[in-house]
Amino acid sequence: MTDIAMVEAAARRLEGAGRLTPLLSAPLLDEMAGRRVFVKAECLQHTGSFKFRGAWSAISALPEDIRGRGVIAFSSGNHAQGVALAACMHGISAMIVMPSDAPATKIDNTRAYGAEVVLYDRDREDRDAIGEKLSRERGLTLIRPYDDAAVIAGQGTVGLEIARQARAAGVGNCDVLVPCGGGGLTSGIAIALSSHAPDLRVRTCEPAGFDDAARSLAAGQIVPNQPGGRTICDAIVTPQPGRMTFPVMSRLCGPGFAVSDDEVRAAMTAAFSHLKIVVEPGGAVALAAALYRGNELSGKDVIVVASGGNVDGSLYSQVILPG
Amino acid sequence: MTDIAMVEAAARRLEGAGRLTPLLSAPLLDEMAGRRVFVKAECLQHTGSFKFRGAWSAISALPEDIRGRGVIAFSSGNHAQGVALAACMHGISAMIVMPSDAPATKIDNTRAYGAEVVLYDRDREDRDAIGEKLSRERGLTLIRPYDDAAVIAGQGTVGLEIARQARAAGVGNCDVLVPCGGGGLTSGIAIALSSHAPDLRVRTCEPAGFDDAARSLAAGQIVPNQPGGRTICDAIVTPQPGRMTFPVMSRLCGPGFAVSDDEVRAAMTAAFSHLKIVVEPGGAVALAAALYRGNELSGKDVIVVASGGNVDGSLYSQVILPG
Repeated sequence: MTDIAMVEAAARRLEGAGRLTPLLSAPLLDEMAGRRVFVKAECLQHTGSFKFRGAWSAISALPEDIRGRGVIAFSSGNHAQGVALAACMHGISAMIVMPSDAPATKIDNTRAYGAEVVLYDRDREDRDAIGEKLSRERGLTLIRPYDDAAVIAGQGTVGLEIARQARAAGVGNCDVLVPCGGGGLTSGIAIALSSHAPDLRVRTCEPAGFDDAARSLAAGQIVPNQPGGRTICDAIVTPQPGRMTFPVMSRLCGPGFAVSDDEVRAAMTAAFSHLKIVVEPGGAVALAAALYRGNELSGKDVIVVASGGNVDGSLYSQVILPG
Repeated sequence: MTDIAMVEAAARRLEGAGRLTPLLSAPLLDEMAGRRVFVKAECLQHTGSFKFRGAWSAISALPEDIRGRGVIAFSSGNHAQGVALAACMHGISAMIVMPSDAPATKIDNTRAYGAEVVLYDRDREDRDAIGEKLSRERGLTLIRPYDDAAVIAGQGTVGLEIARQARAAGVGNCDVLVPCGGGGLTSGIAIALSSHAPDLRVRTCEPAGFDDAARSLAAGQIVPNQPGGRTICDAIVTPQPGRMTFPVMSRLCGPGFAVSDDEVRAAMTAAFSHLKIVVEPGGAVALAAALYRGNELSGKDVIVVASGGNVDGSLYSQVILPG
């Protein structure tokens, strides 16, 4: 299990490799939300999402001889890019198993970071089985997207930074809204804050219809999503909270939020207009909750994680087009 | 005249009020440019551009009784927003004289920061005369956009940060490309770097047809732009280099660059795709030069200032739309 010592060790390994992302704010955003909003801009992290942190943490923690044989990952995109660049920076090979309908930007970038991309059919093939077979055959280490103690520790470094930056900005006693897929980022941040800023409470944010974390937290046990349904928040759609992440979230997080695709579009546009950052749909669910669930928040401020910015130009153009 | 002591004093006054903007980079951007590219993301500054620094510097330097009467500025937009927010944060009133055809975002935001906006007709009225008349009648202090020693000092704080961040990133002996309108940002950065990082050489970047700084530098004297002509880079169109800024640029800067609107569009798209920052046309001219004038650059790296991000959604949507 990931603990605060592992998060702090991950932060030391990340030093000089990861980017300390800014905590942004804007008076016009505060006005929209009716309170002060502080946005941790992880879209500015290497590869455009927080996933680089977990990938770097896991790869840098491997014994040198194991690491040298290379790594493999299966991912709808952001984890893929994070693993590809972290492997590239370590000078080792990476194989990435991706669904064939992943956004073009994510497939292209993963290849551009030097990884070998293997595409699979999301509806007919089992990515876990493919990943584990390739891993076994070639001696590659599988870097899981969230159910991995070192990955969770890496994502938790976002929380260490938030604790420091919030203190410097005079922010405390409020909610920290985190986009939640499998729960690696959420649980990592929760571990970090429970030690370093216990007055900041983590809450999950998800697209409506895919709010497995919120429903599982409410039920006190894992409740999977129903199959089917559509959302523009592709990056954070997972069948259910992780086996390792759910107990952490259950222990440390407040009630979760679900937001609509329209609220997500408005949040992406607000980030464009007022913060000048590009946030992808899945990365904007927490900002959407800050803007549209204000009466369910505690505290006069709110901290929001904008977890990624990898969105195709065609979708982004539609989203921010006025009127 | 602005000197390094004034820039350092402006940096001290700006502490806690301004934002230390990150120096961003991305492997895929390096690949496009054929060298390492480091982007100083001033679009992430308060009000979405570096102009906040100069405005804060000038307003914070005023004697308290003078400051209390309020300030006035004339500006096509970014300087307006900078002055409006800096005045608001000082608790004083601001009147902004803006052309009636300025982007809607800029007019709206200036008003939202609490300033009183006076619109004028760019083709038929003289903004300087309007500004000076209002200033005289109401006892307001005119904050000039670039020909003001305290404003230049404020913009120069970007250079102090670049000097520190470049050193930390192991970058030296290269060009620093700066979007140039009246020359306040360019000359401020040049003053800072000539003291703190003399191996970094500032070069002006402008839209083709409005490259008065480049032509003036080449001629050794101020050469105004021809009237007429069109560009999407509205924020940095000025008739000629400033009276105070040109001597500084002439002494400290290398030859300037002119880039086309299409090159600017490609640079804005590259910043969207690879850095996840929103850069406005005028703010993207330096990145355009880094990407498309590589054979005229010296050094194996290049530093680029992305000076602002205030662009309407309708224009931005068109620019980043693929194909």
